[in-house]
This record gives sequence, C-alpha cells and structure tokens, in this order.
Amino acid sequence: MSRSQEWLYGLNSVIEALKSSREIKTIFISLKRHKELQKIVELAEKKGVSIEFRDSEFFNSKFPRGNQGIAALAQRKNLLSLEELLQISLRKEDPSFFFLIDCIEDPRNFGAILRVADAVGVHGVVFQSRRSVGVTETVIKASSGAYEYVNLAEVVNIKHAIEKMRQANITIIGAETDASLTLWELDLKIPLALVVGSEGKGLRRTVKENCDFLVKVPMKGKITSLNVSIAAGILAYEVLRQRSALG
Amino acid sequence: MSRSQEWLYGLNSVIEALKSSREIKTIFISLKRHKELQKIVELAEKKGVSIEFRDSEFFNSKFPRGNQGIAALAQRKNLLSLEELLQISLRKEDPSFFFLIDCIEDPRNFGAILRVADAVGVHGVVFQSRRSVGVTETVIKASSGAYEYVNLAEVVNIKHAIEKMRQANITIIGAETDASLTLWELDLKIPLALVVGSEGKGLRRTVKENCDFLVKVPMKGKITSLNVSIAAGILAYEVLRQRSALG
Repeated sequence: MSRSQEWLYGLNSVIEALKSSREIKTIFISLKRHKELQKIVELAEKKGVSIEFRDSEFFNSKFPRGNQGIAALAQRKNLLSLEELLQISLRKEDPSFFFLIDCIEDPRNFGAILRVADAVGVHGVVFQSRRSVGVTETVIKASSGAYEYVNLAEVVNIKHAIEKMRQANITIIGAETDASLTLWELDLKIPLALVVGSEGKGLRRTVKENCDFLVKVPMKGKITSLNVSIAAGILAYEVLRQRSALG
Repeated sequence: MSRSQEWLYGLNSVIEALKSSREIKTIFISLKRHKELQKIVELAEKKGVSIEFRDSEFFNSKFPRGNQGIAALAQRKNLLSLEELLQISLRKEDPSFFFLIDCIEDPRNFGAILRVADAVGVHGVVFQSRRSVGVTETVIKASSGAYEYVNLAEVVNIKHAIEKMRQANITIIGAETDASLTLWELDLKIPLALVVGSEGKGLRRTVKENCDFLVKVPMKGKITSLNVSIAAGILAYEVLRQRSALG
C-alpha cells in the first residue's frame, strides 16, 4: 500500500466511501457476507470499482474484531489546512462552528466525535497530530462513514490554530469539568469553536488559558466526568438548539 | 469465583467500588503500577480490603487491553426489581426519570449510558436481559465507576416494564431516527422514561408501538444516526436543561 492510499473497514465506512467522491481502488468482501452484498455490489459497479472476495482469515488477520467482513483500499482522504477550513466557513450561511480536538487518545472517541461533527454540520474539525491518536483505521470505522464528509485539518499545535481562529473573530469555548459556566448559560449563536481535551486529563493548562470561555456539562451524580465524545455531542447539540431557536 | 462475586478492572471502576458501600474481597495491583497507587492503598486500608500484587501477565491474560493493571474481586452488585426502582423514584423530589435499554449489544455503549445515567441523576436504568450484552466486566469498566451508583434493574421483557411504568403515569419516550418530533419540541419536565434501542436497528417495532412519543435528535449531515450512547446523552441533558429552567 502506498502512502497515498488508506484502508477502510466495516460496512458503513465502505458504503459511505463508495457514495462519496473519493477514489476507491478495490473492495474486499468476505465469502461469508451475504447481508447488504447486493447494495455494495451495485454501488461498486456504479462507481467502476473492482470487487475481490476473500476468506474470513484475510479480514481477521488484517483488521480488529467487528470488521464485518468488508474492507476497501482507497485513495487517502484529503486533509485540509486550517486556512482552507476558515475559507469554507466563510462561505456558509450560519455562523462559524468548529471542533478543536486536543490530545484525544482513544480512536473510538475520535471516530464518535467525527460522527457528531457530521450530525450537527460543523464547518470543520481541527486535531493536533502530536499526543493524539491521529486518523487510524479504527477512527474511520468508529466514525461510521462520517469521516468521508467532515472537513478535517491536522495541525502540529492546537494553540496556534486557536490563535488564528481568534484573529478571525471566532470565539473559543473549552469544555472543562471545573468550569463555572454551564453550557446553557452561554450564547452559542456566535461564531465559535468548541475545544475538547484528552480522556483522562481534559484540556491542557496552556490550551485552557487560550479559551475565551470555559463551559461545563453539569454533573449531578458521583462520577465527575462524561466520556469525551458524549460531552462533545451534548455541547454541539446545545449549539444547534440555540441556533435553531434563532431561525 | 462464586456466582455471588464479580470482577472489576480498570482504575475508576476499582476506586469507585472502594468508595461505595459494596463489599470488596481483594484488590489486585500490577507490580508495574505506580500512579495513584497510594490512593488505592489508602482507600483499601480504610475499608479493610486486602491487596495482592501480580505481574502484568495476570492482568493481560484475564482482562482486555486497557485494564490499567488493576482489578478487584467484589461481591456482585445488587440488581433491583422494577418495583423497587419505581419506589425509589417516588421518594425523589424531581419527576420520575428512567432509562430503558432495549437490546444494546456493545458493552462500551452500555457502560457509557450508565455513565450518562449517573451524570444526569436518573432514578434508575432498566435493561432487557435477552438480546442485549448484559452486565459484563467491559460494561463496568466503560461505566468508569458509574456502575456503583446507578440503580439497575434487569427485566426479561422491556415491553412489560413499559406497561408497568405507564400504569405508574410515567410517559414513555422512545429515541427514533425517523420520528417527526425533535427532542426540543417535547415537554420533558413530566415524569418520563427514555427508551433507546440497539446500535444497528434502533427500537424494535413492538417497543416503538408502546411508546407515548417518539423523538429524534435532528441530523444535519449525511450520516443518519448517532452512536446510541451519544444520543442517550443528548436526550438526557435536554431533560436536565428543561428541568433546570423550571427550578
């Protein structure tokens, strides 16, 4: 596999890649897969993508459990630059809405956040390459196909991205368990970027200091934090709720 | 291990079990663990629980990756009956608030939902034993300790639970991608139970038919559903938001 290609596995990942504009080299299907086989074959034929059948061993040696006996070798998705994300946002009708991801370690959380990003229609997602999981096959799988549609930028340092966004009049809102403001107390109709931090430690001190506001999702129980992808989902839907009420 | 005992693994699971009223037989710690070691030892001593040290092999052969080199053998958590959950709810000041879990298959989703349940202070969680993952070690780990604090009832058939809840004047609200109502359009200050269904298929038809309302989390992107634990989190926090505004 060349550097310009990447593997996708799992039913939704492959189906959405076939539906998207991305170039797919080959689809691999398990001899044991029957469900949705016709749909995949039709999509592949429409796009002119070749299909190869393989035994279960091929899938289980190459991919984690839950691979669903389907994979694709595809042209690597184009990541964008921060500047390109900002340009995309300018062309949208609604106020800027970004996710900034600082040091997420669990690929399933990263994937689930991409799924939220697609669901709420964020203009782009920025993630830091250092100290985070990066885009792995498991991230793509966990995004359930959302990876195909989300505008994604990788930056070396999230703090520089924050600076540039602030210069573009985007308000930076960090998710932080100890914040005094709750998500319901803040006007989220303004152009904004939501920053979420690592699973164990939350936002790094230096990232926190660069936020305009810190907000918390209030916790009524004994446990002091939510899963980061769930917190991102709750925050993002509060943005959507406030903006829907506006329209 | 007797049927009256269960294994816990992972740092938060063990720490929260030590803090809770549950009886713990033994704590097992990896010889390689140093972080938070003192905290664990102090909690264990306070509770009079013995500690045994083991090599990494012990943990890696017994538990999945991410076990964090810590485990406990504990008295099995008491599950409650549906009637007990309803009694607990009657003693609360706020209107009834339950989660009903129908056929969740992924232990990490089940665990994440328990974490949400603790966070929003639901009065209880009801899950169906058939066709769902049940309470496994991975569920407990993914709940990040919330398992200790959530009132949990296992039922054979979720439909009977729905019937009994409706008789107790609890409104049954099913989460359903195709619903016409959004979560923001419904009064969630009333006594209610939120029902979430399986990852792939959502609510079963017969469960759907027994709901008073079906609501959706609106989707603005290309992918048609969210991870079920994230959807549960968004719905549950909308309940909390509406009820906070009331107070």
